[in-house]
Amino acid sequence: MPRYKLTIEYDGTNYHGWQRQENLPTVQEEIEKAIKRFCGEELTIYCSGRTDAGVHALGQVAHVDLPNEIPDFKIRDGINYYLKPQPIAILKAEQVADDFHARFSTTERSYIYRLINRYAPLTIDRGRAWNVPRALDVDAMHEAAQILVGHHDFTTFRDMDCQAKSPFKTLDQLDVRRVQGDVIEVFARSRSFLHHQVRNMVGSIKIVGDGRWTKADLETALHAKDRRAGGPTAPPDGLYLFQIRY
Amino acid sequence: MPRYKLTIEYDGTNYHGWQRQENLPTVQEEIEKAIKRFCGEELTIYCSGRTDAGVHALGQVAHVDLPNEIPDFKIRDGINYYLKPQPIAILKAEQVADDFHARFSTTERSYIYRLINRYAPLTIDRGRAWNVPRALDVDAMHEAAQILVGHHDFTTFRDMDCQAKSPFKTLDQLDVRRVQGDVIEVFARSRSFLHHQVRNMVGSIKIVGDGRWTKADLETALHAKDRRAGGPTAPPDGLYLFQIRY
Repeated sequence: MPRYKLTIEYDGTNYHGWQRQENLPTVQEEIEKAIKRFCGEELTIYCSGRTDAGVHALGQVAHVDLPNEIPDFKIRDGINYYLKPQPIAILKAEQVADDFHARFSTTERSYIYRLINRYAPLTIDRGRAWNVPRALDVDAMHEAAQILVGHHDFTTFRDMDCQAKSPFKTLDQLDVRRVQGDVIEVFARSRSFLHHQVRNMVGSIKIVGDGRWTKADLETALHAKDRRAGGPTAPPDGLYLFQIRY
Repeated sequence: MPRYKLTIEYDGTNYHGWQRQENLPTVQEEIEKAIKRFCGEELTIYCSGRTDAGVHALGQVAHVDLPNEIPDFKIRDGINYYLKPQPIAILKAEQVADDFHARFSTTERSYIYRLINRYAPLTIDRGRAWNVPRALDVDAMHEAAQILVGHHDFTTFRDMDCQAKSPFKTLDQLDVRRVQGDVIEVFARSRSFLHHQVRNMVGSIKIVGDGRWTKADLETALHAKDRRAGGPTAPPDGLYLFQIRY
C-alpha cells in the first residue's frame, strides 16, 4: 500500500483537538471520514504532533497508506471535497517512502502564538489570538524568552498530565516580535515539545511583558522544575502548529 | 449634546451590511442597541461609508451625540460590554467638535481586499478572503491596476443600483502585492468610492491575473463606461474597510 504525506491546515476552534475521541468532534475523525468516502476504506492516519482543543494548524503533517496509487493532486482535491464544510483542508498530498512516519521521522516542529494587545475585544480574530488588554513590553518579552532557549529540564512548563518520559528538551528558538500594530507573535522551534509547553512558556513570558515578572523571575521559575512555579497557561486560541520538518 | 467619534472593527460575515434593515441583523442596529443599553437613550449613529453584507471593517468610523460628557475610555469599554457577543468592537472613542460628521468630513477612504491563491479551500480564513484556485500573476495585476488610478468615469466598475449622482471619481492608489506565501492584497485609496467599486475593480484585475484578460482589455473595459463590459464582482468575503481619514 503506497504511503502518502498530507500537509493539513485547520481552524481548531470547534474541535476537541486532533485525536479521535468517543462522541466528540476531532480533526482526525473528520479526515478519516473524508478518506473513507474518498477511497471506500476505513484507514488510520498518523500525525506529527497532536494538537489540543481550540489549537489551529497551518502545516500539520500526517501520513496514510492508501489501497492504491493515486495522483497527488487527486488525493488533495478528493479528500478536500469530502471534508466540506469542515474548516479542515489538505494543502498538499505527496507520495513518500514506506519508512516515512509523520511522527517518528520529524526533525523539527515550529509553532506560532499570536497575541493581540488591546483593550477592545477581538472580532475578526476571535478564537484566533489571545486578547491581552494590559500593555506588553515586547522587547522585555523577547529578552526574557532567550533564557528558555537551549537544553533544559522544562518541568515548569510541562502539563501535569504530560506523558513524556523525560522533561528535557532542546528549545532552538523562541522569538517574540511585534508583527504590526497591536499584533505580537511568538515563534517557537524545537525537535519536539512537551504537552502544553508552548502555551505554558507564552503564559509566563506574557507576565514578563506586562511587568508582573522580571527576566530573573522567569529564570527562577525554570530552575524550580515545578509546574506550580510557572505562569498561567496561555489560551489555545492563539496557538498555531506552523511547520513540521523532516 | 457632546459628539463622539467611534472607530469600529467588525467581522461582517453574519451581518446584512452596516445599514439598519427591518428584521435583518446589521452592524448599525447592534451598535445602536448597545448604546441604548449603555446610556439609556435611542440614538442614531452615522458612519463614514456603509459596508455591504459580508464585508468587514478594520477601521470604520461613525459619530454619535451622547446625552452628556463621558470619558472616552468609558464609552469604548461600555459600548463594547453591551456589544458582546457580537463580533463588533469599538477600538476607540474620542470627543470631537460639533461640526464633525463621520460621512461628510471624510477626506480619504482606504480598503484592503485579500485573495488567497491556492487550490485547497480556506479554513482559518474562511469568509475572510477570496479563495482563487487558478494561479495569479501578481505583477501583471499590479501593472494593469495602474490604468484605473486617476480621475475617471468609473461606470464600468459601479453597481447598476449605485445612487451616486456622478460616476466620476479620483482613485489615488490601487496596489496589488503578494503579502506572504499565497496571500495577495489589493490596497485601494480614494476620497470616496462608488457602490461595489472596489469589488468590481478587483474582479476585473483578477481576470488579468489569471491570464484571461490583458492590461489592454482592462483599459477597453474602463473606456466602455458600461458595467456589462467589466469583470465579475469579487465576493464580499475578502473586503475590509481599512481606514478613514479626516
